[in-house]
Amino acid sequence: MILIGERINGLFRDVARAIAERNPEPIHALAVAQTKAGAHFLDVNTGPAVDEPEKVMGWLVRTVQEVVDTPICIDTMNVKALEAGLAAHRGRALINSTTGERAKLDAILPLAKEYGAQVIGLAMNEKGVPKDANDRTAIAMEIVAAADEYGISPQDLYLDPLILPVAVAQEHAPEVLETLRQVRLLADPPPRTVVGLSNVSQKSKNRSLVNRTFLAMAMACGLDAAILDVTDQDLMDVVATANILLNKEVYCDSYLEVARRAHAG
Amino acid sequence: MILIGERINGLFRDVARAIAERNPEPIHALAVAQTKAGAHFLDVNTGPAVDEPEKVMGWLVRTVQEVVDTPICIDTMNVKALEAGLAAHRGRALINSTTGERAKLDAILPLAKEYGAQVIGLAMNEKGVPKDANDRTAIAMEIVAAADEYGISPQDLYLDPLILPVAVAQEHAPEVLETLRQVRLLADPPPRTVVGLSNVSQKSKNRSLVNRTFLAMAMACGLDAAILDVTDQDLMDVVATANILLNKEVYCDSYLEVARRAHAG
Repeated sequence: MILIGERINGLFRDVARAIAERNPEPIHALAVAQTKAGAHFLDVNTGPAVDEPEKVMGWLVRTVQEVVDTPICIDTMNVKALEAGLAAHRGRALINSTTGERAKLDAILPLAKEYGAQVIGLAMNEKGVPKDANDRTAIAMEIVAAADEYGISPQDLYLDPLILPVAVAQEHAPEVLETLRQVRLLADPPPRTVVGLSNVSQKSKNRSLVNRTFLAMAMACGLDAAILDVTDQDLMDVVATANILLNKEVYCDSYLEVARRAHAG
Repeated sequence: MILIGERINGLFRDVARAIAERNPEPIHALAVAQTKAGAHFLDVNTGPAVDEPEKVMGWLVRTVQEVVDTPICIDTMNVKALEAGLAAHRGRALINSTTGERAKLDAILPLAKEYGAQVIGLAMNEKGVPKDANDRTAIAMEIVAAADEYGISPQDLYLDPLILPVAVAQEHAPEVLETLRQVRLLADPPPRTVVGLSNVSQKSKNRSLVNRTFLAMAMACGLDAAILDVTDQDLMDVVATANILLNKEVYCDSYLEVARRAHAG
């Protein structure tokens, strides 16, 4: 499982304040803590309604990379901010994200090619998020085809079937699981899959339980990556256990301790 | 999810002692506790090396049914004990189990037909438990075909792909998940699937975590039923959450409390 730390996001108050004050300390601390907790990428999002988003994204990327080498998942809807983030980034970034809309694909994919970045593709288009798995997979297929036009391999794509909060859109959850199974059949080798895990539990009580349970279910359906709270130890224990049960990591009696220690750096 | 309480089994010391002393009290208590905890069936197993297994099975079935109406999953390799259990049972029993061996099928399936019982069919034969999913599914198909010869519908079959302990046979776990997916395609309407959940965590530390994680994964692959510890509240919370995420129960903010209260009778 590829783990993408969700925490450097202006939606969190501590991050919003750090951005407003251009204070690198809280960003450094979150970058180090998530990397120690096992993150393979760090999602970086300026948050909504920030002034000069391209300057902020550039500053965030540079600030993170002052303390860790963990590659960044540049999370923005703003193409200028995305480009500023890519220009500031050392190593190979992950773009979060394009949708299946043609204008969006034609804006994002050339940047991915230019900067050698990987790309998250959301299973939605101008009509929004489809209700069923087949329609989600059809959009995923369009993203794979468009990437191919730009010379980007399916293996550099992370397709996100878009899990919605079970509290408000319950019927989407089984469709997302089915989409994960279908997307693996779109190309050989297949594109990767990713979910923004915490979405599933928005507005639910028992958020961690809902996250943990859905993650195990999604991993059984072939999920490759997730944007999640890597500092949630119960969640990380489920990741380690599901990796064992999928025969992706070798079992030993102390596999949990091994996983925790590996993450503790 | 169909929940089969695992606890009335002579492998547990309290049950072995109750059997030896023909003391109904511990059996009554376990029957009531598991029924209150949400069990739809109660597995009943005399344990190994008991004298007069057919008398013991008859006594256990009658003793359970003195206090609850929950149907019994009659768990024995001994055909005489099975028949004694079926003869003593009120209502529709579940036979645990036949394998895919022809002699076994020809011994068990006529009893199922005679007593109107449902049957668990294990994906193994005289050669043992196959290593991969296709071979497990092939045996499951033979069980479905043999049941059809005896006039037993696929819907009265629970096919068990046989999960082995991850601590000793790790490579089997993903094959079991794949078998769960394949078995659903064997007939329309499909046979049900079942696992003996606690097997997966035999000889592991963190048994409850391994059980919980594997159950969520198996439910994502279409699992219909499990023999498990219905008194493990963390495990039951995962069942309730996975049912919500599969859109099988309607979400409400207090779904966990509702599930717990329903089970508390």
